[in-house]
Amino acid sequence: MVRKSAATTETPEPAGTESKAARTRTRILDAAAFVLSRKGYGGTRLSDVAEQAGLQAPAIYYHFPSREDLIEEVMWAGVASMREHVEAVLDALPADTPPLDRIDAAVEAHLRHELEISDYATAAIRNAGQVPERIRARQVAEDNRYADTWRELFAAARDAGLLRPDLDVSAARMLVLGALNWSAEWWNPRRGSLDSVVRTAQTMIRNGLSAAASAAEPAKPRRRATA
Amino acid sequence: MVRKSAATTETPEPAGTESKAARTRTRILDAAAFVLSRKGYGGTRLSDVAEQAGLQAPAIYYHFPSREDLIEEVMWAGVASMREHVEAVLDALPADTPPLDRIDAAVEAHLRHELEISDYATAAIRNAGQVPERIRARQVAEDNRYADTWRELFAAARDAGLLRPDLDVSAARMLVLGALNWSAEWWNPRRGSLDSVVRTAQTMIRNGLSAAASAAEPAKPRRRATA
Repeated sequence: MVRKSAATTETPEPAGTESKAARTRTRILDAAAFVLSRKGYGGTRLSDVAEQAGLQAPAIYYHFPSREDLIEEVMWAGVASMREHVEAVLDALPADTPPLDRIDAAVEAHLRHELEISDYATAAIRNAGQVPERIRARQVAEDNRYADTWRELFAAARDAGLLRPDLDVSAARMLVLGALNWSAEWWNPRRGSLDSVVRTAQTMIRNGLSAAASAAEPAKPRRRATA
Repeated sequence: MVRKSAATTETPEPAGTESKAARTRTRILDAAAFVLSRKGYGGTRLSDVAEQAGLQAPAIYYHFPSREDLIEEVMWAGVASMREHVEAVLDALPADTPPLDRIDAAVEAHLRHELEISDYATAAIRNAGQVPERIRARQVAEDNRYADTWRELFAAARDAGLLRPDLDVSAARMLVLGALNWSAEWWNPRRGSLDSVVRTAQTMIRNGLSAAASAAEPAKPRRRATA
């Protein structure tokens, strides 16, 4: 599977010198995410990042003033690109999309993006609480913005009377995000198709949340009575 | 919330000198789990562990030959105590307990234990892939044994025809474990009662998995038709 960089998701690259600089910057970020997810904050050395990126270590300083700045950007970039991706998918839905279908779409968008940027996701997961607070500040702010997106999704479903009344909505949201976030820790193409994981997650989450017994067949054409 | 040590879960302490040694060993392990979950493998120093445990650093060497041995034990102890706890809960159920009720019981046992030993759980989560392979070997073996417990739970439910036929059973199992494992990353008593989280997780997981529309009210007395 080709893993798309979190750093290039949103930025079409212009031609010329700037393009090459942007590509090098992305290569450094991807390499830093790779090393940071495996060696941790304490064990991440710029020499390892340079080797992974196929560069000389001093070249990194052309793009990032310090090791701390580079790590700060990695911790932030994964969350930022996730939020932007999921919000773009939600914004592209028709305005009258029902709340549970919007959650379905967000589940798919999160899972697919998580597994595309898995080095960034894993780096953020494993280094949460290990990097100094000042390095995490921008990530934490971005985390909160992304959490708001999910809060709105769940609030809309609750306000429409679509959630089981016995759910603790806040706990339900965190359990769903946990199931999605954790996928970077176990999924790889040898574990079965990503499509199958996405469908299973959608089915479980919709049926787990939905107040309606008729939700037994989510996001599909309704079955005939003869089925 | 009082966080029970992973290291003392299974061992009643005898009186006398041995008891004191065992308590000190547990105190060192608890302190190491605390430091390892926050500083990571690369950043964990025995002097920090000693300070957290309220001991002099050389005292650690009386119980653990090396820093590596101590970290190895922490990475293993959390998984081992989790597996033993969940298996003990399952073994105590009546032999004719239906498969989905057994999953309910395992969900509750995992969640409650996870949040009791959260330093061990967080240390294992955040340092997976950061510690050298030889340090993880015993943890990985224990992980696999615990995964087998969950495989058996899901296989029994599937063989009894209780799971939705459209689920990828392996993906469903990993999504459930992800939701549970991630709880150590977000839950604290300020996030609401643990009972409420447990009930919400059970409701979502049972309804997410169950083929029966009648599973809309899980693990409760059946509602009257007048409800």
